Amino acid sequence: MRTTSLWANSMTSTTNRQVLLKRRPTGRPVADDFEIVSTPMPTVKDGDVLRRTIFLSLDPYMRGRMNDGPSYAPPAALGQVMVGQTVSEVIESRNPAFTKGDVVVVYDGWQQYGCSNGQGLRKIDPSLAPISYSLGVLGMPGLTAYVGLLDLGQPKAGETAVVSAASGAVGSVVGQIAKIKGCRAVGVAGGHEKCDYVVRELGLDACVDHRRSDFAEALAAACPNGIDVYFDNVGGGVLKAVLGLINQNARIPLCGTIADYNAPELPPGPNLRPLLVKRAMIKGFIVSDHADRFPAFLADCAGWLKQGTIKYREDIVDGLENAPAALLKLFDGRNFGKLLIRVSHL
Amino acid sequence: MRTTSLWANSMTSTTNRQVLLKRRPTGRPVADDFEIVSTPMPTVKDGDVLRRTIFLSLDPYMRGRMNDGPSYAPPAALGQVMVGQTVSEVIESRNPAFTKGDVVVVYDGWQQYGCSNGQGLRKIDPSLAPISYSLGVLGMPGLTAYVGLLDLGQPKAGETAVVSAASGAVGSVVGQIAKIKGCRAVGVAGGHEKCDYVVRELGLDACVDHRRSDFAEALAAACPNGIDVYFDNVGGGVLKAVLGLINQNARIPLCGTIADYNAPELPPGPNLRPLLVKRAMIKGFIVSDHADRFPAFLADCAGWLKQGTIKYREDIVDGLENAPAALLKLFDGRNFGKLLIRVSHL
Repeated sequence: MRTTSLWANSMTSTTNRQVLLKRRPTGRPVADDFEIVSTPMPTVKDGDVLRRTIFLSLDPYMRGRMNDGPSYAPPAALGQVMVGQTVSEVIESRNPAFTKGDVVVVYDGWQQYGCSNGQGLRKIDPSLAPISYSLGVLGMPGLTAYVGLLDLGQPKAGETAVVSAASGAVGSVVGQIAKIKGCRAVGVAGGHEKCDYVVRELGLDACVDHRRSDFAEALAAACPNGIDVYFDNVGGGVLKAVLGLINQNARIPLCGTIADYNAPELPPGPNLRPLLVKRAMIKGFIVSDHADRFPAFLADCAGWLKQGTIKYREDIVDGLENAPAALLKLFDGRNFGKLLIRVSHL
Repeated sequence: MRTTSLWANSMTSTTNRQVLLKRRPTGRPVADDFEIVSTPMPTVKDGDVLRRTIFLSLDPYMRGRMNDGPSYAPPAALGQVMVGQTVSEVIESRNPAFTKGDVVVVYDGWQQYGCSNGQGLRKIDPSLAPISYSLGVLGMPGLTAYVGLLDLGQPKAGETAVVSAASGAVGSVVGQIAKIKGCRAVGVAGGHEKCDYVVRELGLDACVDHRRSDFAEALAAACPNGIDVYFDNVGGGVLKAVLGLINQNARIPLCGTIADYNAPELPPGPNLRPLLVKRAMIKGFIVSDHADRFPAFLADCAGWLKQGTIKYREDIVDGLENAPAALLKLFDGRNFGKLLIRVSHL
């Protein structure tokens, strides 16, 4: 049996605070796009597992889910709990597969409590690493980095690999794996502090501030042998500059286009002529298609973390009610490391 | 021994008419970018093969060669004979590998006569098909279609394949191979006459005129099940419309960007967000990397031609001096079929 939580209210609450998606944003989300409500605690039926949310992950993909229309996943429903992955503690189980005190990764969304029949819950080992890491370096963002860089980007020792959003949840793992594979690894990040972190802490060979007016020239200087792999988290002007520097047979895994996420209409992209001249490839991917790679990823990445070969940084905001404002940090580049909401304490 | 050519002057000429690249065009080429000169006939040394040009191929790639700066092949040199592939007749051979009367494919460029040690000459069989076909459906453009569609596009029966410049040298072969492979094949071409030809003569399922103001809607109507493969010869607005219609795991071989060829600066491209959402791929390629596929291509394509499964159309302009003006037809879409200059008669 687990000891009692530090938060006394965690076991005695009769209400479930939730953040609902009230309306679909046009452009940048605002507070009024969300609604914070208190609902009765879920009823636990036979076979059910009741969870208390510890950490809620905030990720760029959430902006896409707030839109209507076809995408790779259905939109978040209006008037419903906003979607999101969480690390949660089982506080009541009427399901033999789970025990009170289990820590699980689950898509419980932006709420204090979740309850379901246990499908889609993945137990994690709290002794392996801080439990929040299962939403980042040891979870979906880490797998995204692993699959996108290794399977699509196929970096070879001696090649140059560039990654944008290089201090973020995905990008920081990409850059460090590129180093492990023997590449010259070059980050792109916003501002001096992040660039400094990418080079000094993460150990990349260089990091270029995308806010520089001479960004394209600075990137060229950081990549004297051209670019063989570009892991694209952002699209926009960074991709354009990269295309001017790609080598023959370059590979560009397209992971995110955060530069465009709040644009009501998609702005023009880069001219693709360099792809032809250089026989290069851009390929989009969605991490959920690659769940079969999770065991290999977890073994590798947990090992690298343990050895200290991979470092990892989190940006934790306390309180579920702060999630709407915190989400915007992602689009402004104001987060520094993996963005999480601490909904309660374990 | 071959019989005497119909053109009496072919064996008695003492001068070699040539079209030189005089200056690099800015934007659209004009007549003054070229210079037509008469030079002495080449001297035939031991080991040499002297050729008379029969057909000169005019192809979109030539615009790129007229620019300076790095590309996948060196630029055409100023003051030198403009580059181009020809079908030529050997009129004198001091090389045991070639005999007077042989018909060869060679990069002799824009001139009446070429002479060299025989490297890079490929003999063709004039009984297989009209000799000019070796510059089109049975040559580089045909191989481009074959490799791009089959190796990169990987069309499967029942899928929808779209090709732009669908009545042209490459596009017409792409569309017809897509039909052979069991796809719904949809062309894009400029004007009613070409679209009509693509459907009635080439047998594609539909062809959409890119000049229509409602092009994107018309393309969507022609592709009710979305687009799985897009063989892109043009870039620009067609690619943008296609990206709005791609299916999951779509493949886009990028063969040409003729929409941009005369632009002094590369204009913006399409937004690439759909690639991510649909896990789709754009990959540039250059046919010269795929010479190993030539034997398989030639066997397949000569067979299809013989069976009448593949049809082919040429747009032949007489006279070397008309080559500069004829080249512009490609960029205006005024050619209708594979564009060739008849430099002399066999």
